[in-house]
Amino acid sequence: MTAFQTDTKIAADSAPPTDAKTRVSQFMQQLQDSICQSLEKLDGVGKFQEDSWKRPEGGGGRSRVLREGAVFEQGGVNFSEVWGEHLPPSILTQRPEAAGHGFYATGTSMVLHPRNPYVPTVHLNYRYFEAGPVWWFGGGLDLTPYYPFGEDAAHLHRTLKAAGDRHHADYYPTFKRWCDEYFYLKHRQEMRGVGGIFFDYQDGRGALYKGPDPSGPAAVYSDRAGIPETRGWEELFAFVQDCGNAFLPAYAPIVERRKDMEYGDRERNFQLYRRGRYVEFNLVYDRGTIFGLQTNGRTESILMSLPPLVRWEYGYHPEPNTPEAELYEVFLKPQDWAEWTPQG
Amino acid sequence: MTAFQTDTKIAADSAPPTDAKTRVSQFMQQLQDSICQSLEKLDGVGKFQEDSWKRPEGGGGRSRVLREGAVFEQGGVNFSEVWGEHLPPSILTQRPEAAGHGFYATGTSMVLHPRNPYVPTVHLNYRYFEAGPVWWFGGGLDLTPYYPFGEDAAHLHRTLKAAGDRHHADYYPTFKRWCDEYFYLKHRQEMRGVGGIFFDYQDGRGALYKGPDPSGPAAVYSDRAGIPETRGWEELFAFVQDCGNAFLPAYAPIVERRKDMEYGDRERNFQLYRRGRYVEFNLVYDRGTIFGLQTNGRTESILMSLPPLVRWEYGYHPEPNTPEAELYEVFLKPQDWAEWTPQG
Repeated sequence: MTAFQTDTKIAADSAPPTDAKTRVSQFMQQLQDSICQSLEKLDGVGKFQEDSWKRPEGGGGRSRVLREGAVFEQGGVNFSEVWGEHLPPSILTQRPEAAGHGFYATGTSMVLHPRNPYVPTVHLNYRYFEAGPVWWFGGGLDLTPYYPFGEDAAHLHRTLKAAGDRHHADYYPTFKRWCDEYFYLKHRQEMRGVGGIFFDYQDGRGALYKGPDPSGPAAVYSDRAGIPETRGWEELFAFVQDCGNAFLPAYAPIVERRKDMEYGDRERNFQLYRRGRYVEFNLVYDRGTIFGLQTNGRTESILMSLPPLVRWEYGYHPEPNTPEAELYEVFLKPQDWAEWTPQG
Repeated sequence: MTAFQTDTKIAADSAPPTDAKTRVSQFMQQLQDSICQSLEKLDGVGKFQEDSWKRPEGGGGRSRVLREGAVFEQGGVNFSEVWGEHLPPSILTQRPEAAGHGFYATGTSMVLHPRNPYVPTVHLNYRYFEAGPVWWFGGGLDLTPYYPFGEDAAHLHRTLKAAGDRHHADYYPTFKRWCDEYFYLKHRQEMRGVGGIFFDYQDGRGALYKGPDPSGPAAVYSDRAGIPETRGWEELFAFVQDCGNAFLPAYAPIVERRKDMEYGDRERNFQLYRRGRYVEFNLVYDRGTIFGLQTNGRTESILMSLPPLVRWEYGYHPEPNTPEAELYEVFLKPQDWAEWTPQG
């Protein structure tokens, strides 16, 4: 791992090595492989089916889906590597230096929809872009429980914090806050779940911490963490690799604890209802979904994140003093989960 | 009804009368009332429940929902009348004259999700805007079948054509084409259904026919119909009233013909799957939804259009030579439904 630079110029090692695309792409494929193997073992029954596909404008991918497993009602894990003549406007607004240049993008993404409402949904996405003079890493991991447990949220956050802390003490707190802000449904005034980490446009020029949405509850976070202004490509790639490899230790213990809990129609109906929020987030706000649809991506792969069965119900409110109400009141608000301790 | 003007200036009667807002708002409320009464009669069991609401920034509405009816699994009919300091950017791009002015908007919208997969889903929305120097009407009606019948599509289109023809021979063909282009899921390369009519920004300055999406199947329609350049406010309001009143004669006979047809799991599963397209359209493309969410509208009322139960399935394709395949091959492509004749 490259040591942090302390001057304010771009570090000498901040440019990508000549084999950057190959190395990142290979890592993203290995990440997909290892995730799929682990999930099949965790499920015990379901197997992933793969579709390889090519994108007419350049590149392609491998979409893998597991359906009707014992633990997972549906799980999708996508690897893609695409290139083209220009990035879509939503990205050029953020990275105007990329205008007029071709682009390269590779990444792995995953969404799991468990059957048991006590097992939380989880989402992972890590990605790498090059476009003319600029490059960056982005991604994250976040947890969406239906019937939540403090110890599960704490375990996930502590695992991500440990991965971040191996690189810089400010990574976890900064990217945890960014996650709280990003996975926020403004029209519902709700977070999507208990968060995790999220970052984008990490290019060695500082954390590019995007200011909070002033109308959101996460607006309590208004400071910019002190990420050093220069970080090399190697350091960032090492960090992303550590984040990717943290998925299984972060999530598998939660599944093991919850997958055999008993549930009935009430819990199932609430799970299906809450899955609607996942659909709303992915179709209205999610950058990966919008990027995919804007760049003429493979629709079936992009929308593989949508749940297999979903319910909407007009005017639903949880009854006070129920587990459903606790989800809204405690778990869908920003909390310092890494600092969580069991209540007396 | 005001006669058409033939000169190219804005007609003398093109400005709204002083009681324009009151008259349109009253019509929109009466339309909601008459639709709800008719639908309760058609359903036989379900009753609408009403929520009245106020919008903090100005205005409010009446949301009515019918659930678990005999015919309708869910039906939502909204009336709203809102005002505020400025229109959202998506509208100001189309009507820059409105920048810096307050706005007024009123309208009625409806989406019905029938239980029987042989009964098509239907959507109606009519709306009126004033903002500084500009005003306009918009809206339409469109049909989304699951197991389709040519005679149903033809009946709906002929009823809408008759309503349009009472005002101008170019209205139906122009707004039918616009509907085919608007209710198009680009990422699926599919129409949402068999269309109907759609128009927007009708302000007496011509039809403002928006060019077709060059990548869509509706790109066959590239001519601009010859709507006269000057039409008065009264004429447009009369046209919108006729459109609103055409809903029941357009839709009720279809329901009567289909509501008692037998179906099983296959048809139900396909219906739930196709409902996913409705969700995708409303969250990714629909102007009414986006306007509502952007103007801090009442989320529950805006998203009342989403179906009560929905399925997504990765990689689904209909088997050749099935009714499901016929939907894709014939009914989700632009057709001259008003000219349809039964096949030998």
